[in-house]
Amino acid sequence: MTLAVLAIGDELLNGDQPDTNTADIARLLAGHGLALGEAACVRDREEEIAAALNRLAAAHRAVIVTGGLGPTADDRTARAAAKALGVPLALDPVALKQIRDRFQAWGRPMHPRDEKQALLPARAAVLANPEGVAPGFHLRHPKGAELFFLPGVPAEMRAMLAAGVLPRLLAAAAPRPAAAVQRLTVFGLPEPEIEQRLVRAALPDGVELAYTVDFPVVRVRLSASGDGADLAVDRAELAARRALEEHLVALGDETLAGATARLLTAAGLTVALAESCTGGLIAKLLTDQPGASAFFERGAVTYANAAKTGWLKVPPPLLARSGAVSAECARAMARGIRRAAGTALGLAVTGIAGPDGGTPDKPVGTVFIALAGADGERVEGFLFRGGRDRIRLHSACTALDWLRRQAIDHLSGER
Amino acid sequence: MTLAVLAIGDELLNGDQPDTNTADIARLLAGHGLALGEAACVRDREEEIAAALNRLAAAHRAVIVTGGLGPTADDRTARAAAKALGVPLALDPVALKQIRDRFQAWGRPMHPRDEKQALLPARAAVLANPEGVAPGFHLRHPKGAELFFLPGVPAEMRAMLAAGVLPRLLAAAAPRPAAAVQRLTVFGLPEPEIEQRLVRAALPDGVELAYTVDFPVVRVRLSASGDGADLAVDRAELAARRALEEHLVALGDETLAGATARLLTAAGLTVALAESCTGGLIAKLLTDQPGASAFFERGAVTYANAAKTGWLKVPPPLLARSGAVSAECARAMARGIRRAAGTALGLAVTGIAGPDGGTPDKPVGTVFIALAGADGERVEGFLFRGGRDRIRLHSACTALDWLRRQAIDHLSGER
Repeated sequence: MTLAVLAIGDELLNGDQPDTNTADIARLLAGHGLALGEAACVRDREEEIAAALNRLAAAHRAVIVTGGLGPTADDRTARAAAKALGVPLALDPVALKQIRDRFQAWGRPMHPRDEKQALLPARAAVLANPEGVAPGFHLRHPKGAELFFLPGVPAEMRAMLAAGVLPRLLAAAAPRPAAAVQRLTVFGLPEPEIEQRLVRAALPDGVELAYTVDFPVVRVRLSASGDGADLAVDRAELAARRALEEHLVALGDETLAGATARLLTAAGLTVALAESCTGGLIAKLLTDQPGASAFFERGAVTYANAAKTGWLKVPPPLLARSGAVSAECARAMARGIRRAAGTALGLAVTGIAGPDGGTPDKPVGTVFIALAGADGERVEGFLFRGGRDRIRLHSACTALDWLRRQAIDHLSGER
Repeated sequence: MTLAVLAIGDELLNGDQPDTNTADIARLLAGHGLALGEAACVRDREEEIAAALNRLAAAHRAVIVTGGLGPTADDRTARAAAKALGVPLALDPVALKQIRDRFQAWGRPMHPRDEKQALLPARAAVLANPEGVAPGFHLRHPKGAELFFLPGVPAEMRAMLAAGVLPRLLAAAAPRPAAAVQRLTVFGLPEPEIEQRLVRAALPDGVELAYTVDFPVVRVRLSASGDGADLAVDRAELAARRALEEHLVALGDETLAGATARLLTAAGLTVALAESCTGGLIAKLLTDQPGASAFFERGAVTYANAAKTGWLKVPPPLLARSGAVSAECARAMARGIRRAAGTALGLAVTGIAGPDGGTPDKPVGTVFIALAGADGERVEGFLFRGGRDRIRLHSACTALDWLRRQAIDHLSGER
C-alpha cells in the first residue's frame, strides 16, 4: 500500500511560499524504495485539515503531515487531528519538557504561548524535533493508517522525517519485490523522437519508461520490479545508450553541468569562457560543481564591446563590419579568450536574449556559439525560442554540451 | 467559491521532479486576488486522475489541471478527463491544426504520435499553446465546475494560464470584498529581529503579518481586508519602511537583483565585477534583468591567479603575501576591475565556497567583498555558514546589496 503527504498552510496556497516539503519527502522516500501515491495541500482550517486526514487515511497505509504545529493562532493541525480522530486535546508532558529543554539549550526565554505546541491529541506519541521547538507526533487512525505530524519548517521536517518517521515506515513496509531504477538525462532531442528511438530499441520486457521535460533537457526513467529487475534495467540502459547515442548526457542524479565538469576534469582539458548574452550563466553552472578549479581557468562576461576588444582582442573593424552578434565575433571571442587564458579550450557565446535588441535579420533568440581548440575553431548559429530566461538557458546548455562532447572526443583519442 | 489545482505525474511523487506549477499558479492567481482552496497531486493513472477530478470539481468552482497532455504513452490526462465526465475521446480538428501549425512554424517533422495530443474529450474547447506543442482544453464538469487542462511544462503552463485561463476565472469571479496586500523583501536581518521591529512599529489594526524565509532573504506579507484595507496596508508599509530601514530591499514582486538593477540604472552608475568564489553568479543575477546593459559593462570570473594578475593587475607579491582569499586581494581586484572597465563602480568577491579549500585560519565560508568607487574602496570580510550553494548565494546577495545601497546613496546625493 502507498503513502500520502498532506501539506498544511495558507501560505502554500495564497502565493506566498512554494511547498518544498512534499518534493523533499518524495525524494527521501524514493531513495528507500518507498512510493508516494498521492499528495495534498490544504489551508489552515480545522474542518478542511480533518477532512483531508480522514480521506487520505482511508486510502493509504501512512500519511505524512507537514505544517501547522507552531505556536501561533493559525497553527491548527493538532486540533484538527484530534477532531478527525474524535479524541480530546491534552497537554503532553513529554512534549512540554522537550520544548522547555529547547529554550533552555538556546538560552532564550520560553513564551507562555509556546506551551500551545505541547497541546496534542490524546494518546499521541511525541516525535522529537532536534532542529527546532515544535514537537511532532504520531497517531494511528481508526482505519489503520499511521499518521505522522511534522513541522513545516523544511530543516526541521527533514531531520524528523529521517530520524523519527522513515525507520517506522521501513519497518512497517511489506517486504518489497526487488525493484530497480535508472534515470537518463537527454539533451538535443525532442521528447517524441526520444520515445521513438527507445521503442525501436526494443527494451527488455517489464521495463517501464517515463518521460519528464525539464527544459532544455528531457529525463527518462527506466524501472522494473520483480526477479531480475536489476538485470532488466541494466540491459535497458545499455539499449538506451545505443539508441540515444551522444544525446544521453547524464545518468542517475548527475546533471549536464556535472557531467561536463567530470569529463573535462577526466580529460585534463582546461577551459576559459567568453560570455555575452548568457551573462555569466555558463560560468555559474560550471562553478556550481565542487572542484571546478581543476578545469575552469577564467571567464569573461563581455557585455560592452570595449571588453570584447580589450580582453578578447576582437578587432574593432570586425565588430563594425559584422556586429557583436555574429559568427565572426563569436569565433574571435573564443580565439581571444583561449589565448588570454592559455587554456586548452576557449568557448564563446554571443547573442540576443531579448526582450529588446532584436532586428529583422537578427531576431531575439539569435545566438552564436564558438569553441576554440588547438586545431582551430568551430562556430554555429542558433535561433532559440521563448523568453529571455529560456534563450539564456538553452544557449548555456548547448555550450555545456559542446564542452562535454569535446571532452569525450578527447578521452576517446579522436582529437 | 474557491479554486483548486491538480498536478498530474508519477515524476512529482516518485522523487524525480518537484512540482513547481502549483506554486506558480498560486502566485499568479494571488496577484489577481484569486485564492486557491486546495491543491492535489496524483499519479499517471486513469482511475486516480478521474477520481481526483470528480472530487475537486464537487468542492470548487474551478480546477486547474497540469500535466499528462504530452505525446507519450504515460500521458493519460485527456483519457482520464473523458472517463470522469463520461464522454468519449475524439480527434479534435482545432487541436490537430494547432499541432500541425506548430511543427510547420518550427520547420520540424510531425511524428504520427504527436496526433495523440489532439485526442480530447468530446465537447472540449481547445486552449492554444503559444510555447509548445500540446494544446490545452477547457470543459465544464456536470457539477458545474470549470475544468482547465494545461501541459506540465512550466513555461507552457504559465503562458496558457495567463492567456487562456486567468481571464475566464476573473470574469466568473464574484465581486470580492475589498482587500489589500503588500509584500516586503528583507535582507540582512534574522526573522525574529524583523518580527520584533515590526511589532514595535505598532502597525495599524487589522493588518495581518506573515513571514517566509527564502534564504538569504525574508519575505513579509502585509494584508488587510474590508473597508479601508488599502489605507491600512499603505500605512503599515510606511511603518515597516521606517522599522526595517535599509534592510527593506524590495517591494511586491521585485527581487533584490531587480531592485539593484533598477537603482543602478536610475543612478546612472556603471558596474564591472570581479568574481572568484561566486563564479559568475553575481553577473548572472544582474544580467537576468532585461536592460542590464544600461549599467553592466563587464564581469571577470577569475578562478586562476593568472586571471587576477593579468586582467585585474593584482600584484603577484600581494597574492604571495596575503593569498587570493584576503581583504588585500579583494581590494586589489575591485580596484583592478574598475580601472580595466572604466566604470563608476568595481565590485569584487573572493572566498572559499567549499567543500574543500578551507584552512584553520580561513575556514570554508570565509569571503571578502570589496567595492571600489571614485572615492576609494570599501572592503569587508565575512564567515558565511552552510554548504557551497548557500555560501555562494549569501555572498552574491550581500554583494548585490552593497551595489543597491551605493546606488541609493548616489541618488540621495550622499556621494
